[in-house]
Amino acid sequence: MDQTPAILPELQNLRNSIDNIDAAIIHMLAERFRCTQRVGVLKAEHDLPPADPAREKRQVARLRELAASAQLDPDFAEKYLAFVVREVIRYHEATARELAEKTAG
Amino acid sequence: MDQTPAILPELQNLRNSIDNIDAAIIHMLAERFRCTQRVGVLKAEHDLPPADPAREKRQVARLRELAASAQLDPDFAEKYLAFVVREVIRYHEATARELAEKTAG
Repeated sequence: MDQTPAILPELQNLRNSIDNIDAAIIHMLAERFRCTQRVGVLKAEHDLPPADPAREKRQVARLRELAASAQLDPDFAEKYLAFVVREVIRYHEATARELAEKTAG
Repeated sequence: MDQTPAILPELQNLRNSIDNIDAAIIHMLAERFRCTQRVGVLKAEHDLPPADPAREKRQVARLRELAASAQLDPDFAEKYLAFVVREVIRYHEATARELAEKTAG
C-alpha cells in the first residue's frame, strides 16, 4: 500500500520550516563572515596567526554545552564549528597572501 | 613594533559578536534537526529514500541566491548545505536501521 500521498502535507510543512531556518542561518553566516573578514584583516596586518587553538578550544566547549541544552547532538555542534573555522582560515590565509603581495609590490 | 595591544579591544569585540552569532546558529540548527528527525521518521516509515537529489538541487540554487544577496560567497552557502545534508542523511539512515531492527525483532 502506497501511503506517500497521506504524508506529503506533513513532509511539505516540515520542508517549509527547514527552508526558513536555512535562510535564517545563511544570513547569520553572512554576518559571521563580515566579522571574521575584519578579524582576518586585523590578524594579517598585525602578523597574528590565522588559527587560535586556545580560543577554538573554548568555543568548542561552549557550543557543545549550548547544543546539549538545546537537545542537539554536541558532536554536531563541534562539527559545525570545525567546518566554519576551516572555511574562515582559508579566507584568513588568502587575506594574508594578498596583503603580502601588496606590501611586496 | 608590536601593535597587538592596540587591536585587542576590536578583536575582542568582534569575537563577542561571533560568539553570539554561533549561539544563534546552534539554536537554529537544533530546530532544523527537530524538523529533519521527524522527516527521517516519516521517510523510514514510508520507505522513502533518505536523500532527495531533486529537492537538494532546488535548495542549493535558492541558498546560493540568498547568499549572493547577503554578500556571502555562494560557494560557502552550498558547502553549508552539503555539510548539513550529509549529517542529516547519517541520522536518517540510522533511523531506518533502527526501525528495520524493531520490525524484525
